[in-house]
Amino acid sequence: MTDRKEFRDLADPEDARDAIASLDLTPDAERVPLEDARGRVLAERIDAGLDVPGFDRASMDGYAVRARDTFGADETDPAVLDLAGTVHAGEEPTVAVDEGEAAEISTGAVMPPGADAVVMVERTEESEDGDAVLVRTAVAPGDHVMLAGADVAAGERALGPGTRLTPREIGLLSALGVDSVPVRAKPTVGIVSTGDELVRPGADLDSGAGQIYDVNSYAVASAVAEAGGEPELYPHAGDDYDEMEAVLRRTADECDLVLSSGSTSASAVDVIYQVIEDRGELLLHGVSVKPGKPMLVGRLDRSAYVGLPGYPVSALTIFRTFVAPAVRDAAGLPEPATATVAARLAAEERYSEGRTRMLPVGLVETGEEVVAYTVDKGSGATTSLVAADGVVEVPADTAYLAEGESVEVQLFSPDVRPPTVLGVGEDDPALARLLDDLERPRYLAVGSREGLRRLRDGVPDVAVTTTGPPDDRDVASQQLAAYEREWGLVVPAGNPEEIAGLADLVDRDLRFVNRGSDSGLRTSLDAALADLADDRAASRRDLTDAIDGFELAAKAHESPARKVATGDADAGLGLRATAEKLGLGFVPVGTETVRVLGNPDRAEKPGVAALRTALNAELDGILDDLPGFDR
Amino acid sequence: MTDRKEFRDLADPEDARDAIASLDLTPDAERVPLEDARGRVLAERIDAGLDVPGFDRASMDGYAVRARDTFGADETDPAVLDLAGTVHAGEEPTVAVDEGEAAEISTGAVMPPGADAVVMVERTEESEDGDAVLVRTAVAPGDHVMLAGADVAAGERALGPGTRLTPREIGLLSALGVDSVPVRAKPTVGIVSTGDELVRPGADLDSGAGQIYDVNSYAVASAVAEAGGEPELYPHAGDDYDEMEAVLRRTADECDLVLSSGSTSASAVDVIYQVIEDRGELLLHGVSVKPGKPMLVGRLDRSAYVGLPGYPVSALTIFRTFVAPAVRDAAGLPEPATATVAARLAAEERYSEGRTRMLPVGLVETGEEVVAYTVDKGSGATTSLVAADGVVEVPADTAYLAEGESVEVQLFSPDVRPPTVLGVGEDDPALARLLDDLERPRYLAVGSREGLRRLRDGVPDVAVTTTGPPDDRDVASQQLAAYEREWGLVVPAGNPEEIAGLADLVDRDLRFVNRGSDSGLRTSLDAALADLADDRAASRRDLTDAIDGFELAAKAHESPARKVATGDADAGLGLRATAEKLGLGFVPVGTETVRVLGNPDRAEKPGVAALRTALNAELDGILDDLPGFDR
Repeated sequence: MTDRKEFRDLADPEDARDAIASLDLTPDAERVPLEDARGRVLAERIDAGLDVPGFDRASMDGYAVRARDTFGADETDPAVLDLAGTVHAGEEPTVAVDEGEAAEISTGAVMPPGADAVVMVERTEESEDGDAVLVRTAVAPGDHVMLAGADVAAGERALGPGTRLTPREIGLLSALGVDSVPVRAKPTVGIVSTGDELVRPGADLDSGAGQIYDVNSYAVASAVAEAGGEPELYPHAGDDYDEMEAVLRRTADECDLVLSSGSTSASAVDVIYQVIEDRGELLLHGVSVKPGKPMLVGRLDRSAYVGLPGYPVSALTIFRTFVAPAVRDAAGLPEPATATVAARLAAEERYSEGRTRMLPVGLVETGEEVVAYTVDKGSGATTSLVAADGVVEVPADTAYLAEGESVEVQLFSPDVRPPTVLGVGEDDPALARLLDDLERPRYLAVGSREGLRRLRDGVPDVAVTTTGPPDDRDVASQQLAAYEREWGLVVPAGNPEEIAGLADLVDRDLRFVNRGSDSGLRTSLDAALADLADDRAASRRDLTDAIDGFELAAKAHESPARKVATGDADAGLGLRATAEKLGLGFVPVGTETVRVLGNPDRAEKPGVAALRTALNAELDGILDDLPGFDR
Repeated sequence: MTDRKEFRDLADPEDARDAIASLDLTPDAERVPLEDARGRVLAERIDAGLDVPGFDRASMDGYAVRARDTFGADETDPAVLDLAGTVHAGEEPTVAVDEGEAAEISTGAVMPPGADAVVMVERTEESEDGDAVLVRTAVAPGDHVMLAGADVAAGERALGPGTRLTPREIGLLSALGVDSVPVRAKPTVGIVSTGDELVRPGADLDSGAGQIYDVNSYAVASAVAEAGGEPELYPHAGDDYDEMEAVLRRTADECDLVLSSGSTSASAVDVIYQVIEDRGELLLHGVSVKPGKPMLVGRLDRSAYVGLPGYPVSALTIFRTFVAPAVRDAAGLPEPATATVAARLAAEERYSEGRTRMLPVGLVETGEEVVAYTVDKGSGATTSLVAADGVVEVPADTAYLAEGESVEVQLFSPDVRPPTVLGVGEDDPALARLLDDLERPRYLAVGSREGLRRLRDGVPDVAVTTTGPPDDRDVASQQLAAYEREWGLVVPAGNPEEIAGLADLVDRDLRFVNRGSDSGLRTSLDAALADLADDRAASRRDLTDAIDGFELAAKAHESPARKVATGDADAGLGLRATAEKLGLGFVPVGTETVRVLGNPDRAEKPGVAALRTALNAELDGILDDLPGFDR
């Protein structure tokens, strides 16, 4: 192994914030057309350059008059004024109003010379010959007239620097005739993803060569855009020094900030470290925060540089915590109002590593409050990205957080909201389809047994289980629905090995793929094997030891069948519905009951009500459509 | 006058919502590249098309081994394994691990055939000759290995329809290799502004012909974009039937929704009404809501149609209340979390018109709560756009709202936030500059007297006045700063009329422009005129009657000077600073003291503290820079 940097002197998170704040990401201001200005931030104060309106303006449809000609007029004794002409909006008046005269006028039109008030049309009547108008009310000078500059006066301060441009500001700028505005430019952020194994989404993947899709580049790019920056994706850099140096320096030349991201390999980090040391300045190498320890902060040529950790949740967490505030500052934007949410911790947390910890949590609404439950212990899983809504920052000296503790959750995005309904439990295709009819549901396919455990702990709204409420009744629940599904062995199309049942797995040399011990299918399989053992007067262990692959537990309900489809297995534990979906053969073994169990404390929650409605309206149709499913 | 439609049968606001909801704005789904997908809404469920990872993957740097070869190993009694080779990330393994062997492996690399676990590099040591590795710990099968599909399994439900795509979802989609996604399309909204007098911002304005800039088109377009639609501006349509019909039908052909906007003239509305009746269907003409009565809802060819009222605040209010929800629905977006804010009403409101009222309010934070004060009574002013933060919907049967009543304010934009500091009072150039150093201030130049009245009522944080706290001390306040400004008569450059002082205004035939009676300048002028009257043993009224233009009160402190600059007046009430800024002459009359008075209940408010800091740091520099200003 090559010489490898260790992160011995980890910086305090506050020092990391200060280091990033010391980097200047702020680009020069720019000018944008008004129609593209929404959401941008004014770089300079804007004063009114003209009066609004630019002329004395009728604010009603009616007649422009000399007010004193109407004095004393009323319903029974109208003033009779000669009609001098008409003024429409958008026209220069061609008439003047002399004593005893009136001019018909439209809202928005220029007041004709001589007139000083407008009488509403509703208080007038034209004479029969059309030459005069009867005015049935008295008006005062200025009535229904907006004087030039009365709305905005030339020279007035209209909008200050730092103003965020929303529709109303764009309206005011329009009124001032402004068609382009000086705004804070968006800092350009170049994203360099490192790691020889990374492939851009859309390209072909060679899994045999250990390739994986690049998760961080697009995710971080969209987080940059969300924070008000202008992201730019650069080509992948391999671990080679010269290649890395060329890509990093080109990025630094073109961007205000260089973010490297994507690699979990220490060797790539070593190379970057070397490039920054050689061609810039390393301010900080390693931060005392979990996850995110291997963060780099520095300068490269005239650009700022931050190295993000490789795991997706870690990369987004570090970006959100340390980098997004700097991007927002450079863009002149405030922290979004929905950046954080107050919650209570679902279960106690113990921690004693002496580093600041960014605890990924999912959120669920109880009706009265928001509960945060921890979802990822640093596994690096991509699925944690969508299972977690944000992070709770736990200071380094906090070793214990009690259940029910009030915490502030830093959301991964201001657009993140708690799901309307949180379900946990068995991975089931009927339920998966039903979720499509709900708005913003979350379902964690943790298996029947783990689902029941979580329901007992009170976190989810719903648990879905094939094992049912346990006999000791320590899980309070309300059954919302129940249905049957047929399970057995998924085999290649046509069942070429002529597998007849479980006994063949025990007695013959077949490659089998199982499910994990928390899954309901596995529980059903274990029960069936126990029966078989009874029949043979053998121990269950004797049977399972004889099955090649019994311990090979696949994650999702389709996974064993897919192993069969690719020829990597002769039989997989699965459902008839899966076998038919994938065009495979099926050897039935039994049926099991899937139960949808509601958390009794959440019966009134709107999301649970929507689930009940969907179950009533849609479940039968879904079951009809899935082979082997029935009430 | 032509025959004119009256709005006799006004629809209930709920019926208007229903009518708009009945129009189908939803466009077909579209596919966008992943890098443009942020903020969009999935149109379809996305299942995982592959396993993540696609292979059994080392999750640590170290050595790939057969676990059973390490059984029993510990610090003092390491297992010694022959080095069979190396596997890097992104490479197909070229080695296999046989019994008694190990292969060096990087994080992310493919597990070589034969190996079933990884030993962390920290628990190993290479032999001196480099041919073997000493393993100082026992590992179990699967340790530090992520099995193929363990993160995401092919066939798993990844994201449901309706999911809003934030960075985390974009990360998950990246992991699945997805580079484009089916999303809800943005409904296209064509905006037709009507009214012959309207000119697009940026174009030349002929004020003499009654032209004004088109406020609504860009403001409504940005509100459309904010609601998730795709705005498209169409050419202005005049009041001519054929022209209006051509523009409206072309817009309807190209857009999901046609919005007409901009005209306050009844004749334009009449023409639109006719086009919709002839070429489509009018569902609703007039809504019982104030402002917004003249709203039209209908269909035109295959498109939906809504006519917005002409006043900017009314147009944005009606858009926000009735149209934005339909645009969001069509785009699949939820109402933003920050769409509303809870507040208390600053003063009682009485109302008895029997229509639903959308009361425009400004917001101010007291520290404990948000207070909403009414700002516009339907004047149609553009400045109300930025003075109001949102509207309070008052039901038709509510005739009275008490001071302190809890109300929900519907913000004009989810990006709107209450100002950090609310100031009211005298229009003063030194203060206007100081505001540039504050973040998100609001200053309402209502004049010294009105400013003091509002401070007494407790609404603003700060009042700026030249008239000082009144002698009866009924306004509690803390003086934050005070300075002097020199005032007098602004005259043309070189003072061609040789005006020497106020007496010339009285005695000679000069055109004068005054300020309003709430302004501090006017108070100073009135005091000086009272002194002059005393000197002459005349009444003050005799003097003011003799001044041509004494009643001509201009809105802003620069306005009289600008009238002088354009030759429309011989003298204007104003400041030396204004005269010098505009290159005009100045006849000094006196100095007055400007006081910045703080609301004693808000002394601790951060925005007030920031103002104090800015006054301390910046005021002297600003005063030095402004002629006639001093401490």
